[in-house]
Amino acid sequence: MRAVVMRPDSLSVEERPIPRPGPGQVLVRMLACGICGSDVHLYRHAQSFYDMGVAAGVSKEILDRGIILGHEFVGEIVEFGPATQQTLDIGARVLSIPFLSNDQDRVPHGATPFVDGAYAEYFLLSEEFLLSIPDSLETEAAALTEPLAIGLHAVNASAVVAEQAVVLGCGPIGLAVIAALKSQGCQRIIASDLSSFRSDLAARTGASVTVDANQDSPFDHVDASISVAVYDCTGVSGMIERCIQAVPRGSEIVVAGISHGQEAITPSIAISKEVTIRFVSFYEQDEFATALQMLASGEIGWQSWISGQVSLENVTHAFESLNSNGQHVKMLVTPSFNAVQSE
Amino acid sequence: MRAVVMRPDSLSVEERPIPRPGPGQVLVRMLACGICGSDVHLYRHAQSFYDMGVAAGVSKEILDRGIILGHEFVGEIVEFGPATQQTLDIGARVLSIPFLSNDQDRVPHGATPFVDGAYAEYFLLSEEFLLSIPDSLETEAAALTEPLAIGLHAVNASAVVAEQAVVLGCGPIGLAVIAALKSQGCQRIIASDLSSFRSDLAARTGASVTVDANQDSPFDHVDASISVAVYDCTGVSGMIERCIQAVPRGSEIVVAGISHGQEAITPSIAISKEVTIRFVSFYEQDEFATALQMLASGEIGWQSWISGQVSLENVTHAFESLNSNGQHVKMLVTPSFNAVQSE
Repeated sequence: MRAVVMRPDSLSVEERPIPRPGPGQVLVRMLACGICGSDVHLYRHAQSFYDMGVAAGVSKEILDRGIILGHEFVGEIVEFGPATQQTLDIGARVLSIPFLSNDQDRVPHGATPFVDGAYAEYFLLSEEFLLSIPDSLETEAAALTEPLAIGLHAVNASAVVAEQAVVLGCGPIGLAVIAALKSQGCQRIIASDLSSFRSDLAARTGASVTVDANQDSPFDHVDASISVAVYDCTGVSGMIERCIQAVPRGSEIVVAGISHGQEAITPSIAISKEVTIRFVSFYEQDEFATALQMLASGEIGWQSWISGQVSLENVTHAFESLNSNGQHVKMLVTPSFNAVQSE
Repeated sequence: MRAVVMRPDSLSVEERPIPRPGPGQVLVRMLACGICGSDVHLYRHAQSFYDMGVAAGVSKEILDRGIILGHEFVGEIVEFGPATQQTLDIGARVLSIPFLSNDQDRVPHGATPFVDGAYAEYFLLSEEFLLSIPDSLETEAAALTEPLAIGLHAVNASAVVAEQAVVLGCGPIGLAVIAALKSQGCQRIIASDLSSFRSDLAARTGASVTVDANQDSPFDHVDASISVAVYDCTGVSGMIERCIQAVPRGSEIVVAGISHGQEAITPSIAISKEVTIRFVSFYEQDEFATALQMLASGEIGWQSWISGQVSLENVTHAFESLNSNGQHVKMLVTPSFNAVQSE
């Protein structure tokens, strides 16, 4: 089969054997897989992640397999491994949280050489995590379940029932946060991005106010007499401190954007305002299922979130264009789509 | 009357007129007032706080009044101002949250030149905030209500029902946190301090394990399979990052110690563990009343928390000794106590 393999200095299609499902596992054919910001991040720092593997004592043999990225996937069941229940049919469209079950542990797809991700024609899932995709839901929409679950989890993590929220960064996670806030009845959602293209999407997704971050501060639109829930989906250095400085008393800053290195904050200001900073990453399994239901219910205008589709052969090209401009939101990899769209 | 006045370059007793209670106010005679770490902090940075006042546009006339510190007070009612209910008797022992009511606003005692604190023979309180001290409770114990309320608020702020807690720093706030954790049934309280004197007090107050911070990490005593609530009561630079590095997944770091300047943190680590950082400062009024009840109930061995009493004339000396050694916990100012005890 064809698979996109990341090595310290390259990302390219290689020929690989089709994997064999082990006990409790299912082989699926890839139908679609979103490109996540974290994939681009891994690619950009591929050498340092390789070096971290060496430092952690992972053998050269394992490291030199390379990493098959891809964890926002939809597949079609091809084959059941041993010790499976087989309640779904061969050919059924499925997805799952991007982890393989391993005793009590879960090993993530597409982040290490240990469990291959879905930038390939075939990949493996654990049967116990399978969710069946309703017939009425498009494959492309189902591929948005994972990023939507990330946004939903960020919103669920906040203890403030947000009368007002600020969403910084309107990429896929920011849009997912806006959709989750809207779904939970947040009255006032102030969204900010450097790209007017993404700000428009924020408005279409449910933002009450959109702010051009080049010219204006979203905090100028906040009612300073009540607390605010801020969702930092940017990963931009200095953003946490800017939030501490700007938020009203009792506010929460939910950090969902991954930044590299250290950040400087001023505790005395945070203390005087009783600010809470929540760092969030992964959803629970029930949040993942809820995200799928939200997409299936039709409440989310997901079509505008997908800004392009590429074949396995064009993944490298897509990574470069995601790196370089603000005109993309979510790009999907499909096994045989022929060209980068929307360019 | 005699009052201890802080100026940019001095802290000394001056003669002042006895204040006149305004509408809704009560004049009280000072019986005892704790020296808070924040008082020592203000004293150490008196010039820069003066400069901040200048920068904020406060007139030289007001700034040159100086600041009368003191917000952990117990008093005795001397005179009621106009428009008061007078449900308590003249001579009744009282305390209150350290704020004067001013329309919808509250102005803190002993932090600015606007409302004088209690390092003086007399001071003013708002009648609406008065709490009567039960006859059975010693004045010295009642003076611990304010720091206990700070600790109680820090514990209440944490959403984690702590199966295990780490308390960093066993000064008055750390001890108050330990007392509040114990009162709320926390099973395992790991306390850490540089001073063996204070570690002993932590054990007597309810810590399950005490750690000498010179030699050992409290996190070596944490069960890493469950989350922990960490209370940073040190204000020491680098402590927040050390906590982020050391805590198990899902933990909360409650920051109650005020540090100066900026702190460096690593968001990627905090995100991978879904750490929450809560910055806390002041209690609510009901927490203050609860703290007084906790002291009145006899559940707290408060006697060991008081390491000395000084007269108004000896406050400067006491500030210097609090600055310079680890043998003090809470020192009380009383109007006419003649010598620094316990030295």
